[in-house]
Amino acid sequence: MIDMGEFELIDVYFNALPNPRHDVILGIGDDAACLEVPPGMQLLVSTDTLVAGVHFLAHWDPFDIAYKAVMVNVSDIAAMAGDPCWLSLSLTLPEASESFLARFSQGIRAVIEPFGMTLIGGDTTRGPLSITITIHGLIPSTQALRRATAKVGDRIYVTGELGAAALAVHYLDHQNLPTDDKAVLMDKLIHPRARIDFVKALRQYATAGIDLSDGLSSDLSHICEASGVGACLWLEKIPVHPLVQNYKGDQAIDFALNGGDDYELCVTVPLRHEDAWLAQLASADLKAYPIGVIEAQPGLRGILNSGIRRDLPKGGYRHF
Amino acid sequence: MIDMGEFELIDVYFNALPNPRHDVILGIGDDAACLEVPPGMQLLVSTDTLVAGVHFLAHWDPFDIAYKAVMVNVSDIAAMAGDPCWLSLSLTLPEASESFLARFSQGIRAVIEPFGMTLIGGDTTRGPLSITITIHGLIPSTQALRRATAKVGDRIYVTGELGAAALAVHYLDHQNLPTDDKAVLMDKLIHPRARIDFVKALRQYATAGIDLSDGLSSDLSHICEASGVGACLWLEKIPVHPLVQNYKGDQAIDFALNGGDDYELCVTVPLRHEDAWLAQLASADLKAYPIGVIEAQPGLRGILNSGIRRDLPKGGYRHF
Repeated sequence: MIDMGEFELIDVYFNALPNPRHDVILGIGDDAACLEVPPGMQLLVSTDTLVAGVHFLAHWDPFDIAYKAVMVNVSDIAAMAGDPCWLSLSLTLPEASESFLARFSQGIRAVIEPFGMTLIGGDTTRGPLSITITIHGLIPSTQALRRATAKVGDRIYVTGELGAAALAVHYLDHQNLPTDDKAVLMDKLIHPRARIDFVKALRQYATAGIDLSDGLSSDLSHICEASGVGACLWLEKIPVHPLVQNYKGDQAIDFALNGGDDYELCVTVPLRHEDAWLAQLASADLKAYPIGVIEAQPGLRGILNSGIRRDLPKGGYRHF
Repeated sequence: MIDMGEFELIDVYFNALPNPRHDVILGIGDDAACLEVPPGMQLLVSTDTLVAGVHFLAHWDPFDIAYKAVMVNVSDIAAMAGDPCWLSLSLTLPEASESFLARFSQGIRAVIEPFGMTLIGGDTTRGPLSITITIHGLIPSTQALRRATAKVGDRIYVTGELGAAALAVHYLDHQNLPTDDKAVLMDKLIHPRARIDFVKALRQYATAGIDLSDGLSSDLSHICEASGVGACLWLEKIPVHPLVQNYKGDQAIDFALNGGDDYELCVTVPLRHEDAWLAQLASADLKAYPIGVIEAQPGLRGILNSGIRRDLPKGGYRHF
């Protein structure tokens, strides 16, 4: 119903992306891609949509828009303890500007190249700017890390400091931040890092996992609800990003608990595996932060070093 | 970066859809779906985006929007001679209206139920109305029907009458069509039928195939360019939908050649297999129409019964 003539130039940019994978039998350019899933592996599939004005701003560098769109999808595969493999891209844009496409395809390349991934196809349409990516990962059969399998007594870990991306959103319109600090915060918001580096240890030791896209309290609640358990968080142990601590003081914990877009992982590890888990992380030069424990009682609670304990409403932390 | 609270009701509708497949290890509700690809099968993946105002009109019944969005994706799997299996749905909508979601999910069900498919996940975001679907199909290894493998001498077939959907678009704003005719045309536009019924015969006999989304001349050109060949079409043999013939007379062939949205298949069959192909179709109560032949010379040509032969510019047929 629309003439897509000018959109053919999109192919030029997307076809030029690397295809390092031998399991791509047919990639871009047919009615569907054709792919080989090796014996003993299961397929992981996840989809995320980013809409201009909601998940990013239309004036962002197209490199950054593409980078983030791909990375948040890779993060979903990390949260399942899988290896990211293939990407389908649906790009809707008001007009097929060559400068946009050049930068956009560079942003895709910047994520897929280090992970050895291949863009296998997609669709381009004219309309309000948005990006939908479906990512495909592979995982040894039965080893996918679910949300529904946390067990009472498991330790809760997060893989990095929290709150900086939310602080960046909070300060988007503030011009009076020191330039260096603003750059650090915007980098956290725009260039999240999917924690694929944790996948090997997760497969061996974790019982449940999720990536932190909506915020720790909300995402950990998903694990708890799916597993039929609750959680108690050691509030002073939650790793708050130092700039969040600097700028927000007493309120910093709000950003760490309820701020989204961090794309760290929140995972549960049985106590009996904790030493081996930490040893393996250390050997890979990785650090995870223990922040609490899975309990039988539903809901989230916070506890302070002083022993004070209170319920944490999902997504709406109130101060002690 | 946005509160999606009200969007949780989407889960109510989408989780209620049937899941008849044993190969869905994890469906909706985790960071990714987890799926089993049986040994000896390859995976097919295709993505199509439909944007309001471009591919459908926002005032359409949400049932129809969903129906068409899913069906055009199933059509891509049919064009690869695959079995449609799993669906990821990204739905962007201005507000999560319950009446919209109820009808929309009914439209999805109306397609996935007869094909035995499962909705395995997706994403819902707030923004201008659009739908992106990634469909997954399975095909016995090495049997995927490509575009790039048509051979000189192959017969070209289409699986049904052409031009009605394009005529529906042409008459969208005309109120003076007889109600019955308009209903037939709109049904062709809104409720295309993916030709999964041809898949078995295609796997046995076809050398190349594509589904007719952009229009016969444009889509057949994709086969020719990918295969390094050309084609000659027997213009009087192209099956033009009777209403297109009635309303457009001499121009009817334009709609059949250049009109999009038919979602029939265009396939090539070697001459030595033609009898067996036709016999198998007949035994399955299916009919395909021979419309021409693959030639070595690049480009598309048309020939009339009178013997007059002329080039067919891609997407822009000129009258003899």
